[in-house]
Amino acid sequence: MKIAVINPNTTASMTATIADAARRVANSGTEILAVTSSMGPVSIEGYYDEALALPGLLLEIARAERSGAEAAVIACFDDTGLDAARALATIPVLGICEAALATVSFIAQRITIVTTMERSRLPIEHLVHRYGMVGRVKVRAADIPVLSLEDPHSDARDRLRGEIAAALRDDRAEAIVLGCAGMADLSHALSTEFGVPVIDGVAAAVKQAEGLVTLGLSTAKRGAYATPVNKPYMGELQGFAPAQI
Amino acid sequence: MKIAVINPNTTASMTATIADAARRVANSGTEILAVTSSMGPVSIEGYYDEALALPGLLLEIARAERSGAEAAVIACFDDTGLDAARALATIPVLGICEAALATVSFIAQRITIVTTMERSRLPIEHLVHRYGMVGRVKVRAADIPVLSLEDPHSDARDRLRGEIAAALRDDRAEAIVLGCAGMADLSHALSTEFGVPVIDGVAAAVKQAEGLVTLGLSTAKRGAYATPVNKPYMGELQGFAPAQI
Amino acid sequence: MKIAVINPNTTASMTATIADAARRVANSGTEILAVTSSMGPVSIEGYYDEALALPGLLLEIARAERSGAEAAVIACFDDTGLDAARALATIPVLGICEAALATVSFIAQRITIVTTMERSRLPIEHLVHRYGMVGRVKVRAADIPVLSLEDPHSDARDRLRGEIAAALRDDRAEAIVLGCAGMADLSHALSTEFGVPVIDGVAAAVKQAEGLVTLGLSTAKRGAYATPVNKPYMGELQGFAPAQI
Amino acid sequence: MKIAVINPNTTASMTATIADAARRVANSGTEILAVTSSMGPVSIEGYYDEALALPGLLLEIARAERSGAEAAVIACFDDTGLDAARALATIPVLGICEAALATVSFIAQRITIVTTMERSRLPIEHLVHRYGMVGRVKVRAADIPVLSLEDPHSDARDRLRGEIAAALRDDRAEAIVLGCAGMADLSHALSTEFGVPVIDGVAAAVKQAEGLVTLGLSTAKRGAYATPVNKPYMGELQGFAPAQI
Amino acid sequence: MKIAVINPNTTASMTATIADAARRVANSGTEILAVTSSMGPVSIEGYYDEALALPGLLLEIARAERSGAEAAVIACFDDTGLDAARALATIPVLGICEAALATVSFIAQRITIVTTMERSRLPIEHLVHRYGMVGRVKVRAADIPVLSLEDPHSDARDRLRGEIAAALRDDRAEAIVLGCAGMADLSHALSTEFGVPVIDGVAAAVKQAEGLVTLGLSTAKRGAYATPVNKPYMGELQGFAPAQI
Amino acid sequence: MKIAVINPNTTASMTATIADAARRVANSGTEILAVTSSMGPVSIEGYYDEALALPGLLLEIARAERSGAEAAVIACFDDTGLDAARALATIPVLGICEAALATVSFIAQRITIVTTMERSRLPIEHLVHRYGMVGRVKVRAADIPVLSLEDPHSDARDRLRGEIAAALRDDRAEAIVLGCAGMADLSHALSTEFGVPVIDGVAAAVKQAEGLVTLGLSTAKRGAYATPVNKPYMGELQGFAPAQI
Repeated sequence: MKIAVINPNTTASMTATIADAARRVANSGTEILAVTSSMGPVSIEGYYDEALALPGLLLEIARAERSGAEAAVIACFDDTGLDAARALATIPVLGICEAALATVSFIAQRITIVTTMERSRLPIEHLVHRYGMVGRVKVRAADIPVLSLEDPHSDARDRLRGEIAAALRDDRAEAIVLGCAGMADLSHALSTEFGVPVIDGVAAAVKQAEGLVTLGLSTAKRGAYATPVNKPYMGELQGFAPAQI
Repeated sequence: MKIAVINPNTTASMTATIADAARRVANSGTEILAVTSSMGPVSIEGYYDEALALPGLLLEIARAERSGAEAAVIACFDDTGLDAARALATIPVLGICEAALATVSFIAQRITIVTTMERSRLPIEHLVHRYGMVGRVKVRAADIPVLSLEDPHSDARDRLRGEIAAALRDDRAEAIVLGCAGMADLSHALSTEFGVPVIDGVAAAVKQAEGLVTLGLSTAKRGAYATPVNKPYMGELQGFAPAQI
Repeated sequence: MKIAVINPNTTASMTATIADAARRVANSGTEILAVTSSMGPVSIEGYYDEALALPGLLLEIARAERSGAEAAVIACFDDTGLDAARALATIPVLGICEAALATVSFIAQRITIVTTMERSRLPIEHLVHRYGMVGRVKVRAADIPVLSLEDPHSDARDRLRGEIAAALRDDRAEAIVLGCAGMADLSHALSTEFGVPVIDGVAAAVKQAEGLVTLGLSTAKRGAYATPVNKPYMGELQGFAPAQI
Repeated sequence: MKIAVINPNTTASMTATIADAARRVANSGTEILAVTSSMGPVSIEGYYDEALALPGLLLEIARAERSGAEAAVIACFDDTGLDAARALATIPVLGICEAALATVSFIAQRITIVTTMERSRLPIEHLVHRYGMVGRVKVRAADIPVLSLEDPHSDARDRLRGEIAAALRDDRAEAIVLGCAGMADLSHALSTEFGVPVIDGVAAAVKQAEGLVTLGLSTAKRGAYATPVNKPYMGELQGFAPAQI
Repeated sequence: MKIAVINPNTTASMTATIADAARRVANSGTEILAVTSSMGPVSIEGYYDEALALPGLLLEIARAERSGAEAAVIACFDDTGLDAARALATIPVLGICEAALATVSFIAQRITIVTTMERSRLPIEHLVHRYGMVGRVKVRAADIPVLSLEDPHSDARDRLRGEIAAALRDDRAEAIVLGCAGMADLSHALSTEFGVPVIDGVAAAVKQAEGLVTLGLSTAKRGAYATPVNKPYMGELQGFAPAQI
Repeated sequence: MKIAVINPNTTASMTATIADAARRVANSGTEILAVTSSMGPVSIEGYYDEALALPGLLLEIARAERSGAEAAVIACFDDTGLDAARALATIPVLGICEAALATVSFIAQRITIVTTMERSRLPIEHLVHRYGMVGRVKVRAADIPVLSLEDPHSDARDRLRGEIAAALRDDRAEAIVLGCAGMADLSHALSTEFGVPVIDGVAAAVKQAEGLVTLGLSTAKRGAYATPVNKPYMGELQGFAPAQI
């Protein structure tokens, strides 16, 4: 089985972290195809970055399907471009926020997501709403830039731990979800430190993807995820017309 | 990996159907421990049967954990006893309704569940509400007794197909969820016949269970799923005291 | 008029407290039939105890109806087994949580329920949701074992009063609901002490039951509360088959 | 015990129907004080009539309390002026829509309200929302003027029965609520004819009122129902200043 | 274009503040017809005042339409009598709470309303619910009488500023809505002081009214806003019959 | 006042229709700057087209602000890129779906949106949810390609009228919202034909934009709409880095 894990930002070192987390939990027969987007922002922090990450992401979705991937994971906690990717692809596509929430829903009633920047909090709260988990899930922001997670000299991880401690003390949280793909390497250490389940969405999405492939399930192509109507695309995005991408 | 799949009714032939569905999708290294409850109703049709299925179910949950199962699946679409089982066990426990809904949520926006009897429709609608999928999921009842699914002379399967056809025509359904463990053998044929994804909860729950075990996740024991306080149990249920079961 | 008030745990001293509260408010022509379950846990603290209280409770529901009771009250604030009891009985059946909330809804907009243990908080929050009172009702736990309410040397009542004080100070609560049948004797003293309405569910349920009987109303037997289909019950629960209980 | 039942429209013949329904279910020791508003519309059909019924209604609430009533019922299914009456009075005040819904919630899951005119449907849907019963309750309008219910030559009752039949056939309704005080005399006959519970709000409210009085409960005076601040009232409504009414 | 701005309380000095706020933002071709109610309370603080403000308000709505106004604004933050006014008038009618919320919804996700008295908080929370903004909008009360806003010696404005500061610090508020028509003159100064958008409902409603008139839109007269059925009105309210007002 | 109206698809003839609708309702002092996106799909039909319309749209938002526009309208009923545009710009940005819904909310309770293709229905239903109008608004699709609205030989307009007729007959709709910018020229004729308010989002958004500018209000820059953090953008989207666009 081949599963594409696509980092929709253009920072290859973050892709490496993500790929490690994916491979650590993949079945022995699963090949993880880790991909970095070739165009757009170096990190996704809020709505504007998210919008400009879409063309690069959709290009990689199309390439992944052509190269034989049986499922694709979008490795950004905003579930960037998930609907467009599902419309485009015939293979199943998963977001790491939705995968993390679906997974944690089996083991806890009250959950806190800890994300990076304040500006990502509201988009994630909208996802919590969309995924039907309002009232069960609270979102906290540790107020750290995404790429600071990779900087050994930053205090990013300490701030993250401070928010987890606050969630356990003040939110009645029973489990923690890490709200950024760049935290994918931290789940085990934090779970051990705090004594509660700590879920990383990349790992969760890989398991969900393997499950869908084994079950022979893919995106329903009736309704909003119907294959895009082919039509001309203009200007610099000419090559993105459905029949050409 | 050993996963217990527990049929909370006492009909062994239905357990056989369930076990087949579970084994068909399990990873090669996964052993499926299929168990039939030893006490309670022969089929679960509505709230009363569900209540009396609980002691037998909880006994099997305790036994499964003692015998080394790393996860347990409750194979009744009412998710009978799910909360009590999660409080009792330290291994993760999954319901097939919640597993089916979590799984289908990755591939479709509008879903119809087709269950057996009208009296099961409302309890399933409550589960849809609890799992945060109101507005996405509609429930239909084919008006067939559970055990008629096993009777080659009944028209149960035709009625089921009639409801699926109605769901695709009238509900904007993009995918179908089979609303009874006794339908576990039908998902592939129905998916082929109707050309849409058809999800069986037993298969979905096995994949979710494997995922949780691989991820090293189990029920959070803070809050409502805290281990039961030991205390005397009286009368015929004396043996069910937390420390004794 | 004869109304059965059933304590679904097996502690007779708690039944005595409940019976007193029921008789204090019953009409002069109403006979209160106070019953203690003969099997299951000595107190109901969380999902597991609740599940094992069901057979004993349903047995008493059936007996109460046979002995001429015109309505039944389930005297546990989790509304344990309410749906199953309604399906089984032809007389109306009331839970004390739903009766307390229906009653308080006529006199206050913002309400706080104070219950015993943290693990009961989430199940009660689910009831609040089901009864349509999310946004109006907050649940607090005083962190006291149920049976400590009967112990003159425990600090249970002081902790309860601490939570009431906090509710009035911090929750904008206009009225208090006591979240455990074992608190049934405290409503008047607490109402006097704090100067706000304090509702006990046992008393509320008795008045609701009398009202239903006078109005000639009982459970609608279409849909989810249809009379259980008779069928074999196996093992130690053989005697619980619908036609035999 | 003395309970005021106030008809907020000015049609005395409708008050007679309402009084009969109230007395039929009242306890033997309960005196029903039936009152007709002295100012405003002859029937309440929509928002405008409702607004102009308020001064007359509030006057009768104040008089009822002064004359020793221990509770008051507002006998219009729009629950006209309920909030203002609760702020004004120190005795409990009940609306017949809220009383009917609280009562039926103990005996049915799916309910249909059948009201008179289309223009009353939306205000009643707003009440259903406010009382937390969206998803359980559907509202139908029989398209009949309120006062036609009193006209033996009109087809109002046949239209009403037509909507009940439709509710049972098409809405999965398990019980019917009559959505107009002018239907208070019909509940028993309709229940017999259709074989399902049929609830009249006037009768339901009388039993709820008796219950509250016996329980010693009245409107919480913290928050939105705090006693009105006294202040000058101008023009023709001078006499309605809180200290004067 | 002529727009009526109706102060439903009887305090002319407050009308002057409101008229100033309206004229400051009106288009050059818009005439603002500022009107003070001639009957009812001198200020609207809670449900009781609101109910008695209705006859005076509806009289002014009818007069405004007769005098050629093309739209009417009800200048009380409780949106007093909005539904009745819409049924009565054929010109569009706007409430200042709904106008403020519609306007702020284009520029902020998290909003805090700061109103005057605690007893107005719950009615405004109900409006927030009705206007679909639960989860986005929080309501705070500065605990100040409405008319104290006009008193240069009161500390009302300081208390208001204290609540705004608290909203920005504790509620994640991105914008502030002033929750009383009597605050209409303060929006610019407070916006400058706190550096966030501060919305006054009177100004917002005038712009919405101008927009509706230009678009040629008025209240839909199907459903709940259908023109009131003419019928006799009794007693002191005789003159309010639909055909006479 | 200068307001930019941006057509996020690349079809200039549709921009002409949109510009006409905008100018017809603009104040005499308002200049409408009508812009066609220079890159991306020729029409937006579903999630994929929407994603690829974003870079072209955001470019025009940045240009509009630089060229002195005081507000911007995104003239696609999916409210394509609204959040990203709000984060990028300091002038207010409006979507035509949100503007249409805010406007119609003042004049009707039950509304039906009629859009073009089935695949756009679900995204619009999500907007209805986000804008807090679930329960008030129904969405219908006339099953017509967007560009067929411009083709005099297609039956697109007849299909649209068929859906409006169905909405009035079956949905209790009191007003109609046109669910595509390409229908902007039809609102007056359809309103006349059907005798109910018919709202076009382009016109509604222009009036809302004028209102915000006059009120001196723009997007709150705390929280999710904070100005994007500058950072490198890679590959073909290099020029879209916040500091460069």
